[in-house]
Amino acid sequence: MTRWRLTVEFDGGPFMGWQRQDHGPSVQQAIEEAAEHMTGEQVRLHCAGRTDAGVHGLAMSAHLDLEKSVTPHRLREGLNALLRPDPVAILHAEPVDDDWHARFSCVGREYLYRILNRRAPPTLDRGRVWHIPQSLDVEAMQEGARHLVGRHDFTTFRSVNCQSQSPEKTLDRLEVERVGDEIHIRAAARSFLHHQVRSMVGTLSLVGRGQWKADDVKAALEARDRQELGLNAPPDGLYFVRAIYPE
Amino acid sequence: MTRWRLTVEFDGGPFMGWQRQDHGPSVQQAIEEAAEHMTGEQVRLHCAGRTDAGVHGLAMSAHLDLEKSVTPHRLREGLNALLRPDPVAILHAEPVDDDWHARFSCVGREYLYRILNRRAPPTLDRGRVWHIPQSLDVEAMQEGARHLVGRHDFTTFRSVNCQSQSPEKTLDRLEVERVGDEIHIRAAARSFLHHQVRSMVGTLSLVGRGQWKADDVKAALEARDRQELGLNAPPDGLYFVRAIYPE
Repeated sequence: MTRWRLTVEFDGGPFMGWQRQDHGPSVQQAIEEAAEHMTGEQVRLHCAGRTDAGVHGLAMSAHLDLEKSVTPHRLREGLNALLRPDPVAILHAEPVDDDWHARFSCVGREYLYRILNRRAPPTLDRGRVWHIPQSLDVEAMQEGARHLVGRHDFTTFRSVNCQSQSPEKTLDRLEVERVGDEIHIRAAARSFLHHQVRSMVGTLSLVGRGQWKADDVKAALEARDRQELGLNAPPDGLYFVRAIYPE
Repeated sequence: MTRWRLTVEFDGGPFMGWQRQDHGPSVQQAIEEAAEHMTGEQVRLHCAGRTDAGVHGLAMSAHLDLEKSVTPHRLREGLNALLRPDPVAILHAEPVDDDWHARFSCVGREYLYRILNRRAPPTLDRGRVWHIPQSLDVEAMQEGARHLVGRHDFTTFRSVNCQSQSPEKTLDRLEVERVGDEIHIRAAARSFLHHQVRSMVGTLSLVGRGQWKADDVKAALEARDRQELGLNAPPDGLYFVRAIYPE
């Protein structure tokens, strides 16, 4: 048996999310079926962080175990050939130790959120950005973001469906930057609660619009109450950027 | 009557090209119908450079004449609201002099061609790049490109359907650059022949693969013979970047 680490890029648009679902296509199912077709084995794929419907992946990390002997090149090319109808691609495949785990070995996760901040709606980037036509105050958003960095109880920024045992997380980075007519929000932490990035982005967008003051973010955080959340941002603009592992 | 300059962004994927066609949707038709719906006038749209099916626009310049009095803001917002089902957006609308012409006043055109140069196929950028899995030699491509810059008879790099009176054009710039796992080719000239950018890119790709030497580009150019063209690149990776006007 060989454990394989896969680095996966995907367009989340046509999927119900990363995780296998009864009611529609998922990234997990697409890759598992390609690997099963290629090897004749029953395959189970684990990932660093499940993504919701419509959320994209630039370099998701995942792993699966195969009995069949295959080179990294053959595995990547074979999976990509079988995945071709779906917007999912294996960027890298490499053998790892048997105790390496895409989810449990992961010590850091990074997300990018793209807001298109101009009057005109997106064309080439439809489904890949959140369009906010009103001009956003990036400095106010940066000030609001600073209240969220560090170790906090993020109950306010957590989906009611979140399965994490504790609402306490340490947010290492939350940076807001204007890039041309987009605003990029980059978030990094060891792990995130369900909907945490989208909830933080939605709330910062209210600060950017001037509907909230930067200090209102702090008050919402301290309330530890989902009802105090300003807004949950749509999935379209969210990208899982990468997973970090020791050494 | 007011003449309006429009700056247009569009995803060329669903269109038969910029120009109105009997057999399918075009960017021109989409904008003309939106303007006609908004004003009740019969409208004719002129652009800086017609694009083929599948070619994209980042900031195409175009103009139309309207009798109806309207502010730039209202015109842009009204057109964008009506265009919403199509991946076409008006980035700017501004009144210009009656003798300003999107095509005839234009003194420079810039194109970008994006090659995705990695093993894995595109996901998020499907239909927006040309995927070449073999590693390309960018330095050789740069050397080949230098043979094309300047004033030449570009018959070799011209579509048989080209309607330009002369095959002589002055290519001001043809730059090849690696950007992450993409190769960007930027071309600038006062005007181009039909298929000229795609023909130059296709030929440079052969140099990048090592099938042609950089000097073979010079020989193909000097042959002044369409049969000597190496390869015409697909439309997916081509973007009309911008049109330049005096002052």
